[in-house]
Amino acid sequence: MTDEEIHLPHVRKPVPSLTIYDVARTAGVSIASVSRVLNGHSTPRPETRDRVLRAVQELGFVPDGAARALSSRLKEVVSVVFRRPRAETQAADAEEFDDEADSLFFMDVLNRGIEVAAQLEGFDLLLSSVDVHEHSPGGKVAKLAGKSDGIILHDRVLTPNGVIRLADRIPVVTLAGTPTRASVNIVGDNVAGMRDLAKHVLGDHGYDSIAYLSGHGDSPDNLIRGKAVREVAEEFGLPFEDGPNWSGEYSAAGGARVIRRLIEEGRPIPRVICCANDQSALGVINELHRRGYRVPDDVAVTGFDDISVARHVSPSLTTVRQPIERLGALAFETLYTMISGERPAERQIVLPVQVVQRSSCGCRPETAPAVGAPSVR
Amino acid sequence: MTDEEIHLPHVRKPVPSLTIYDVARTAGVSIASVSRVLNGHSTPRPETRDRVLRAVQELGFVPDGAARALSSRLKEVVSVVFRRPRAETQAADAEEFDDEADSLFFMDVLNRGIEVAAQLEGFDLLLSSVDVHEHSPGGKVAKLAGKSDGIILHDRVLTPNGVIRLADRIPVVTLAGTPTRASVNIVGDNVAGMRDLAKHVLGDHGYDSIAYLSGHGDSPDNLIRGKAVREVAEEFGLPFEDGPNWSGEYSAAGGARVIRRLIEEGRPIPRVICCANDQSALGVINELHRRGYRVPDDVAVTGFDDISVARHVSPSLTTVRQPIERLGALAFETLYTMISGERPAERQIVLPVQVVQRSSCGCRPETAPAVGAPSVR
Repeated sequence: MTDEEIHLPHVRKPVPSLTIYDVARTAGVSIASVSRVLNGHSTPRPETRDRVLRAVQELGFVPDGAARALSSRLKEVVSVVFRRPRAETQAADAEEFDDEADSLFFMDVLNRGIEVAAQLEGFDLLLSSVDVHEHSPGGKVAKLAGKSDGIILHDRVLTPNGVIRLADRIPVVTLAGTPTRASVNIVGDNVAGMRDLAKHVLGDHGYDSIAYLSGHGDSPDNLIRGKAVREVAEEFGLPFEDGPNWSGEYSAAGGARVIRRLIEEGRPIPRVICCANDQSALGVINELHRRGYRVPDDVAVTGFDDISVARHVSPSLTTVRQPIERLGALAFETLYTMISGERPAERQIVLPVQVVQRSSCGCRPETAPAVGAPSVR
Repeated sequence: MTDEEIHLPHVRKPVPSLTIYDVARTAGVSIASVSRVLNGHSTPRPETRDRVLRAVQELGFVPDGAARALSSRLKEVVSVVFRRPRAETQAADAEEFDDEADSLFFMDVLNRGIEVAAQLEGFDLLLSSVDVHEHSPGGKVAKLAGKSDGIILHDRVLTPNGVIRLADRIPVVTLAGTPTRASVNIVGDNVAGMRDLAKHVLGDHGYDSIAYLSGHGDSPDNLIRGKAVREVAEEFGLPFEDGPNWSGEYSAAGGARVIRRLIEEGRPIPRVICCANDQSALGVINELHRRGYRVPDDVAVTGFDDISVARHVSPSLTTVRQPIERLGALAFETLYTMISGERPAERQIVLPVQVVQRSSCGCRPETAPAVGAPSVR
């Protein structure tokens, strides 16, 4: 017996040992999922659990401390930061416009999407709202980094530079924001959606003038949608209006205010008003009705989002349907893979949207919509 | 000169020294608010700030470490726990019923109310959802106690005993739950609302039979509403139906299912169906329409909540308006006073509700409702 033979069992050549990364790759799930399953730490989806256990068996993987360490390192909390008017502002608006709370609907559904996806992985959500007029919420957001595993920022919370600084410390996903080299942005396809809508009203209907009623001036969604309407108008060689007189601020009260001023100042009303979102379109339609204008016969009005009320109003609202809840869910899912240590494959994920032709563009005669009737035609 | 005279300036009798409690009482605000103002810790309401500073000046109060200690002790986070179907369940329902996501509307608006009130005090919200089928979420809730200053529980999260145990460790407010000796419950006036509604359909309209389509069996709101309808039916000496055949589970799909089964089994349809909430009423109306019944001419249908879509559907929905967002805000405000160390004055706070008479009960001829038109008549 040689020395070599004696030592062989003890000092065999280092073979690349299996890690939970190998299990994750084989199972086709995130390493956080592997960690959770192996620690019985929370309640993963049964399907995820099966895939992980099958991969463990297949590979002959023996878990060591690593999986446990990752799992216990997680706070199982993601922070979500968004801008919301302070309650006083809301109350003042509410007197003027009964439905105003709905302008926040889009945000609530986004957050619901995030929350539902987070629940599947056993994560809680730390919701933090920032007043729309607060200029430097960076300190507040930075405090959240210590309380969570990752952060989702709605649009207009931080500047791109602020996002990059934050992303040095913690994974960051933005919703309807701007992609940066350090974060991932999730957004609906504003360009295609707004171009299709503008081509529909100018091309299919043949209307001869158009305005864009804008949302918040610094919202990337708003800027992109306005540009798309302008470009289509130019392609058709038709008059286009936008600018400070057309600022609807995403709210019904804001939309109504624009129309009121337009009429009081005796300026002509364009044949089509493309609004930055559904809520401001509802305000526009309401004010036009109050002033004796018919929609769509005198003025065609369109929205963006397809909030649930859009199909029920009269005239029912032609709009662009965004998969709002899915946008939120995807934001969590993307953040979750980043928390698991994966590098995101893309800096921006664009989800498809769809024009929904209803009555407010002049597409079909107004009939009382049946409850729950399918709304995409 | 006597010894006494010498010592007097040094050992004068202890006078009760001023504390932030005195400032809070004089200013008429919570001690947490005093603490925040004195530390410049976050951004209190300007009005609150003025009142505190005026009280400080009036009393000649010199802040010591106490205010600072309270403020730094606060995590400035409240947890909110609610039950939500897991995403898989939702997806399955969604195929059958396009609007199903709206059944969660009530919960989202409650949470928005909490969040808006919390923002005013600089608090964030830790949202944690529990699957509707999870039987013992106590461990999950207990974990949240370590991460927050107080907990708000939606209905059916914990049993009353579970609430009492939790309230030993941390201030607890329940929403639409059951009052306990250790927690405060915030709720709409279900009894008055449902009694008024039932008296309207049986008294004013003179309909001759009524059913209660229930929500979740273990929801306190549901039990109280059902009992109110039954009692009014008995007072009128009219036939009343409820029970397992009438379980709508608060969802449109659930409401539609009840009607489908009723018709398929050839059982008679009562003249009025009082639903536990708006969402299930929408499902009931939709299924009745599909089967060729007219609402309200053949069957009158009513809801509860007054979600925003209720006024826009056809026929517009007669319902009971709850101040949903206000319920949420009050839950936070109550919890906030408890966090500040005040004993709550009441174990249950009941907010008034209001019957909203629209078309689905037969009250007014169906006309296309104008967008944004006032809905309470």
